[in-house]
Amino acid sequence: MNGIFISFEGPDGSGKTTQINRLKDYLTAKGCKVIVTREPGGTPISEKIRTILLDPENKEMHGVTEALLYAASRAQHVAEKIKPALAEGCIVLCDRFMDSSIAYQGYARKLGDDIRIINEFAVQGFMPDITFFMNLKASEGIARVDAQGSRDRLEQEAMDFHNAVYDGYIALSEIYKDRFVNIDASRSIEEISADIIAKYEEYVLSRENR
Amino acid sequence: MNGIFISFEGPDGSGKTTQINRLKDYLTAKGCKVIVTREPGGTPISEKIRTILLDPENKEMHGVTEALLYAASRAQHVAEKIKPALAEGCIVLCDRFMDSSIAYQGYARKLGDDIRIINEFAVQGFMPDITFFMNLKASEGIARVDAQGSRDRLEQEAMDFHNAVYDGYIALSEIYKDRFVNIDASRSIEEISADIIAKYEEYVLSRENR
Repeated sequence: MNGIFISFEGPDGSGKTTQINRLKDYLTAKGCKVIVTREPGGTPISEKIRTILLDPENKEMHGVTEALLYAASRAQHVAEKIKPALAEGCIVLCDRFMDSSIAYQGYARKLGDDIRIINEFAVQGFMPDITFFMNLKASEGIARVDAQGSRDRLEQEAMDFHNAVYDGYIALSEIYKDRFVNIDASRSIEEISADIIAKYEEYVLSRENR
Repeated sequence: MNGIFISFEGPDGSGKTTQINRLKDYLTAKGCKVIVTREPGGTPISEKIRTILLDPENKEMHGVTEALLYAASRAQHVAEKIKPALAEGCIVLCDRFMDSSIAYQGYARKLGDDIRIINEFAVQGFMPDITFFMNLKASEGIARVDAQGSRDRLEQEAMDFHNAVYDGYIALSEIYKDRFVNIDASRSIEEISADIIAKYEEYVLSRENR
């Protein structure tokens, strides 16, 4: 695989989408082939799974069913879209990946380490090269979401839930410390963007020297 | 839980459906409340997942995606249908359950022990009280399917695949020997039915004496 697989993680309101677009513009200007993708979704089959996950009619959905559907969607996304793009030398920027499942379902919904195990099965050992963790306290993220307008279903969860998600990410940054890059997301958009680009270039250099 | 959860397993053509109907008639005549169900499916959400699994348009589906979708469908089936029925004292007869996934995907498709692990996560430790294993050599099962008409997608697999499924069931009957009941399915419908009823009554008696 010649490409680079980069995931963006962090609490709601931490600025992932803004920073993905900035990194995309930077890389495109450099002449790189870039793909931006997101979960759940990304392939026709994943989109069908996404429809089941997000349909408000499916309110009887059990937490375990939900976790397995996210993992199924991810498995297809990796096999059908991400891996082929990397094989063609693309840089893939993914808005949330397996760490989101582990932080939200494993830690915050207390489904435990099983979530990590089924996700590692889903991706068959395939992991991001870099994960930019947009480190922002849950309370600050929620304040930003509120400033932007109404909260979606997950964002409406109680503050305890958001704090548990944050703690989950901190635990993950220890487990997967080789790929996690901690980004202080409390700064201005420009400062964060410059930091991410610097860390990206550092990674590319270290990879070339390997 | 007052009810009894009984799964029927075995290769294609081993007579599961016929024997489920016979056991159902026997139990209904005795005054038991009986539910017959099957996988994938059994609840509205599971049916939506089944639609994705069986849609011939989804030919890009990866084996790992497929395995996770079967597990998701099963998780919902257990939580929303099987457990509530058992709580009401029903006897639930299920045409294929987690052993099918392990035999077909884990053993025959060589996805390995991960299939057992994700299925144990899907059912959250919930297992059949009895699993009637319709023990019939793969070649005999396929000969019966051929005699009945055309084969479906799975039945069209090469003979090696069917032999691997059979070997998988034999391995499972060792792993889960407390609940597996071996039924010689090469006999007449009447002989098999009498055997299943006898084994069922034995189980009920031993449960009452516990």
